[in-house]
Amino acid sequence: MAPRKLQVACSGLGRMGARHALHFLNRTPRAELVAAFTPEPSEVAWAKIHLEPSGVTICTDYNEMLRHPGLEAVVVATVTTVHAEQAIKAIQANKHVLCEKPLSTSVEISQSVVDASKTKPHLKVTCGFSRRFDTSYRDAFDRMDSDAIGRPSIFRSQTCDKLDPSGFFVEYAQFSGGIFVDCNVHDIDLALWYFGQDSIVKSVVATGITAVQPELRKYKDVDNGVGIVEFWGGKLAYFYSSRMMAAGQHDMAEIIGTEDELSINANPIGTLVEMSEPTGIRRESPPHYYGRFEQAFVTEATEFTAACLDDSKLPFKLSGAVQAVKIGCALQESLNSGKKIYFDETGRRSEKAAL
Amino acid sequence: MAPRKLQVACSGLGRMGARHALHFLNRTPRAELVAAFTPEPSEVAWAKIHLEPSGVTICTDYNEMLRHPGLEAVVVATVTTVHAEQAIKAIQANKHVLCEKPLSTSVEISQSVVDASKTKPHLKVTCGFSRRFDTSYRDAFDRMDSDAIGRPSIFRSQTCDKLDPSGFFVEYAQFSGGIFVDCNVHDIDLALWYFGQDSIVKSVVATGITAVQPELRKYKDVDNGVGIVEFWGGKLAYFYSSRMMAAGQHDMAEIIGTEDELSINANPIGTLVEMSEPTGIRRESPPHYYGRFEQAFVTEATEFTAACLDDSKLPFKLSGAVQAVKIGCALQESLNSGKKIYFDETGRRSEKAAL
Amino acid sequence: MAPRKLQVACSGLGRMGARHALHFLNRTPRAELVAAFTPEPSEVAWAKIHLEPSGVTICTDYNEMLRHPGLEAVVVATVTTVHAEQAIKAIQANKHVLCEKPLSTSVEISQSVVDASKTKPHLKVTCGFSRRFDTSYRDAFDRMDSDAIGRPSIFRSQTCDKLDPSGFFVEYAQFSGGIFVDCNVHDIDLALWYFGQDSIVKSVVATGITAVQPELRKYKDVDNGVGIVEFWGGKLAYFYSSRMMAAGQHDMAEIIGTEDELSINANPIGTLVEMSEPTGIRRESPPHYYGRFEQAFVTEATEFTAACLDDSKLPFKLSGAVQAVKIGCALQESLNSGKKIYFDETGRRSEKAAL
Amino acid sequence: MAPRKLQVACSGLGRMGARHALHFLNRTPRAELVAAFTPEPSEVAWAKIHLEPSGVTICTDYNEMLRHPGLEAVVVATVTTVHAEQAIKAIQANKHVLCEKPLSTSVEISQSVVDASKTKPHLKVTCGFSRRFDTSYRDAFDRMDSDAIGRPSIFRSQTCDKLDPSGFFVEYAQFSGGIFVDCNVHDIDLALWYFGQDSIVKSVVATGITAVQPELRKYKDVDNGVGIVEFWGGKLAYFYSSRMMAAGQHDMAEIIGTEDELSINANPIGTLVEMSEPTGIRRESPPHYYGRFEQAFVTEATEFTAACLDDSKLPFKLSGAVQAVKIGCALQESLNSGKKIYFDETGRRSEKAAL
Repeated sequence: MAPRKLQVACSGLGRMGARHALHFLNRTPRAELVAAFTPEPSEVAWAKIHLEPSGVTICTDYNEMLRHPGLEAVVVATVTTVHAEQAIKAIQANKHVLCEKPLSTSVEISQSVVDASKTKPHLKVTCGFSRRFDTSYRDAFDRMDSDAIGRPSIFRSQTCDKLDPSGFFVEYAQFSGGIFVDCNVHDIDLALWYFGQDSIVKSVVATGITAVQPELRKYKDVDNGVGIVEFWGGKLAYFYSSRMMAAGQHDMAEIIGTEDELSINANPIGTLVEMSEPTGIRRESPPHYYGRFEQAFVTEATEFTAACLDDSKLPFKLSGAVQAVKIGCALQESLNSGKKIYFDETGRRSEKAAL
Repeated sequence: MAPRKLQVACSGLGRMGARHALHFLNRTPRAELVAAFTPEPSEVAWAKIHLEPSGVTICTDYNEMLRHPGLEAVVVATVTTVHAEQAIKAIQANKHVLCEKPLSTSVEISQSVVDASKTKPHLKVTCGFSRRFDTSYRDAFDRMDSDAIGRPSIFRSQTCDKLDPSGFFVEYAQFSGGIFVDCNVHDIDLALWYFGQDSIVKSVVATGITAVQPELRKYKDVDNGVGIVEFWGGKLAYFYSSRMMAAGQHDMAEIIGTEDELSINANPIGTLVEMSEPTGIRRESPPHYYGRFEQAFVTEATEFTAACLDDSKLPFKLSGAVQAVKIGCALQESLNSGKKIYFDETGRRSEKAAL
Repeated sequence: MAPRKLQVACSGLGRMGARHALHFLNRTPRAELVAAFTPEPSEVAWAKIHLEPSGVTICTDYNEMLRHPGLEAVVVATVTTVHAEQAIKAIQANKHVLCEKPLSTSVEISQSVVDASKTKPHLKVTCGFSRRFDTSYRDAFDRMDSDAIGRPSIFRSQTCDKLDPSGFFVEYAQFSGGIFVDCNVHDIDLALWYFGQDSIVKSVVATGITAVQPELRKYKDVDNGVGIVEFWGGKLAYFYSSRMMAAGQHDMAEIIGTEDELSINANPIGTLVEMSEPTGIRRESPPHYYGRFEQAFVTEATEFTAACLDDSKLPFKLSGAVQAVKIGCALQESLNSGKKIYFDETGRRSEKAAL
Repeated sequence: MAPRKLQVACSGLGRMGARHALHFLNRTPRAELVAAFTPEPSEVAWAKIHLEPSGVTICTDYNEMLRHPGLEAVVVATVTTVHAEQAIKAIQANKHVLCEKPLSTSVEISQSVVDASKTKPHLKVTCGFSRRFDTSYRDAFDRMDSDAIGRPSIFRSQTCDKLDPSGFFVEYAQFSGGIFVDCNVHDIDLALWYFGQDSIVKSVVATGITAVQPELRKYKDVDNGVGIVEFWGGKLAYFYSSRMMAAGQHDMAEIIGTEDELSINANPIGTLVEMSEPTGIRRESPPHYYGRFEQAFVTEATEFTAACLDDSKLPFKLSGAVQAVKIGCALQESLNSGKKIYFDETGRRSEKAAL
């Protein structure tokens, strides 16, 4: 008898949603994609070609999708503004949930997903911080965790997108929560992972500029931002995000300990080909986030599936996703107020700097 | 209705056989692994755990496996000595065949597989030169093919294994055809791919030493070999193979054209982590062949499946596999005779050098 | 007739002073080292062996050195606390001056050197920002200056020393001006070079930790610091300094423009040797600042000499050295107050953030 | 009293000669360039501007230069065809000699320089194998010498010039001794250094093509050559030379031992700048030999000077220069005969392969 497969549905078939759907359809051996939801006619058309022939039911109503017979788990990959609402509905319908990051751009709404999940402790509810599933970030974590670098003290991380000359991200900015929530939430999540999930923030400060899209200011956003986050206990993280990288996506991190240092993706690799030309020696870089992290998304699908089927632990706690949004929002606030923001040793806002 | 899947069987469940079986079982969406053959009790035991629960029939008789109802294609991944025999039997039974490299260490026996395949032109019969399915080698080929480097003139390629202190390869050497057939057959195949499948060899010469395993000499083999292959038309390839790399598997190639140069894997990459330590800056390297080429094997399975299902062209001709063995055997002969070997413009052996 | 040589004296024969002396003695063809000053007996002993036999007069009194017949130029390479005083005395004595960085840890005292130099416009007075003489930093500047990267917008730079387990830098900290003045003054100077010498600072903020030397707090200093400096006109620089690098000195910078990005020394190089070992592939890094910048110091000596002899322009204005100290002091102040500091469009301190 | 300086003359003021002259004039503190010889009017004109004002006597007659009062040492940097003759004359005149490589393209003539030097054992006579003075090659040697790689077994080395579209090297070929003598003599010398100066060659074989300059065949030369040199005692070297590199000069080597591997300049570095552009990440490479080895030439001058002044040992024996030419000539002969050439255990030519 063939092993049981997890019955999965995918909500949202936009750029990332379509990828998630295909991963669960073709590259997650223990899962079976049974349904997909999208209200978009163009996405429905795509699904008729790429999913329906493999037996996937296409829904234009989210609730209808949730009622699919035998459905066990839902991937929420719609626009950020409905992540939380859909995740909560799925939880209430007794489905496991893999929700794209962030849960919400609001700390309170993010927390409401955590609260909902607590009412159903048998469900697996997680947020898709893809870098947590990447071989290289994991390799670095494991080295650090086995004391290879001494006490981790400084963490630098950046999320830098290849310049999209269409300026798409300007209008997108009004719903994205701003660059520190939309982009750096990944870096913040990594800081929490590497420094310890229960690290308590001591201060945050951010500065930014609009180098290519001055109109971003109307949405209180920037296209290049730098933020510093200090944690209680002598740990410091600093972040950079940019919307204008020339060579391609460049996400990287470094973790400096009292004895050694680890870097992850300091030198981006497209293929292993190097070109020696009259202008020098050149290698290409992955152009986009997915080009860099495709395998991490597949691992995410595989491990989420295993956790649901085997009732095993997910690799990280959902509450961390709220903490990351909280820090991202504080950085965005500091960017716009021009002030450093302080927190006391319980993580509560404070008027005074503790030095 | 779900799309039709190719019914595949895997012959041989040793190190590579087990990997092929799992790739067809889990990572080749359009294929279904239905049967597997191995005479080895330990491999049968493994298959009972990893394959049988997913509905794969385990056979200890190759012919029985071939008779599996509905079977359409066979992966031959047994020891090299039976590759050709099993491939021919499968062809005779009207199965598509993906045969591990080399078809045989004998030119004549290799040719007999090609001859058999010609009697069944509707079948897809191919040899698993895994590097042909690797993204980086393909990227380099495509660049060369689109005239990025001028006229390709010099090709250097190496197959270097991490030192196996067990000396396993000594006893293995008596059946492997020697280092130029066993290891460099990959590099020779790449030379034929990059220089053109119909390139005609003009001369070959090889030299080698036994740096770590002097006992190899009893099987007329070496643990480090260098060979030069000249082709008619002003093209030159040179190869290196080694059984004693310290840092890990290091396969690499470079193709030098009249205008530019491309290298593939000159700088091996394990993960994207770099370690800064008191002894310097360090990165790890993939330890083994599979660590480097895992994804290429999956692509091989996927493309072989598509060719069988859609009756589309395979990415290369089977006759090339015979040509690669022919050159590998000539290098091994040169190693042992101490002489350069010449060929005329039709590729036939010649006593005289043409300069 | 042999060409005239610049008559130079070197004040201070400590670590850097001795190097400067030898550069002018042996590696600056158009200069002649004629005198050297040091009050330290151990340094006098060294000079007796390494300088005196080549005809260099050794003085234990600075004024005596200044009176050396024919003396034209002085290198000030003593401890920071007397840089300004000695530079001013030399100017008053009508000598050209190459003063080690920083002029002083005080903005006012730094400015007094500039003021003194203005009274003698025929003299060449400069501050030894060694990176300005480094081939790689110059190459990057030239590329940027010829519009290779669009509008430069983000500058990141770090000065990271190899961990000195002796903790020498703790006691040194009380006179060094703090990590942002002592280390990052180089990075700040580079920011002013790349963004334009007349860039006006808009805000500064800094955070830091003591990861290896908690006693630094008594001198209001840290061993790892991160600072952000925003300039009017939409430019942002951020800096990192550390006293605890494992692999060696790691100074690096990157300049991100609206079209391209340049990095300098992202991958430190000791020699061109790479070691492939069971633990991976490794290269060494220059252990110390001088290992990285030796040639830049020689170029500095050569160009300073040429400017004095030929009355040609120095590569940068002395006033920039004051601006760099001003920003460094503001970062150090922000570190200790926990507050962001604002400046108006004329560069004057302001209570309010301009957003 | 100032220390005594070695009185040096430079013969030949062509490309390399002019550089040698300037190195001894400006960058070799213990030497003094007192005379220079060239018969070329354009070179005389250059010398009038760059050397004469510093007190260097310019001669158009070699013997006149040799008679310069007080002259102690001669750098021979003329065309290869007169290297030996001038070196011998200088030896007879009791001068130390630094002769550019090769001593001659003829083994016999090369040997005559060694013979002459033996008659004057108090003189320092050496051949300018510049890579022996390069920090990176030395670093690799020292590591190997301190047993870092086990028993050195395989040596690969290449000398690849940037393509000179003028085709200058075609006419030059008739006097250069061919690519294996002109270019690979460096690599052969390195093999002798790394494997031991007394290594005895067992066989040589070479193959080559004319990829860009077919006219080279008229001088029995090629523009791309590959050679294999086997040494008695289980050591193997292989060499590549090319006249058509796109990205710049690319000399590199790797030495593979039974335990580890070292590479030198596998990744060429121009400056430490990396450019991130829409086409990828790029670094430049030194365009020419001098760009790569400038500092090695300065070290060569410095160490030659020290050996002469202090009567200390030169870093290598002159006889090695003959051995390198001997192997280079054998490779060139093999290229043209199409045959492998054998040597017995005393290094004498043999008809039969020893296996």
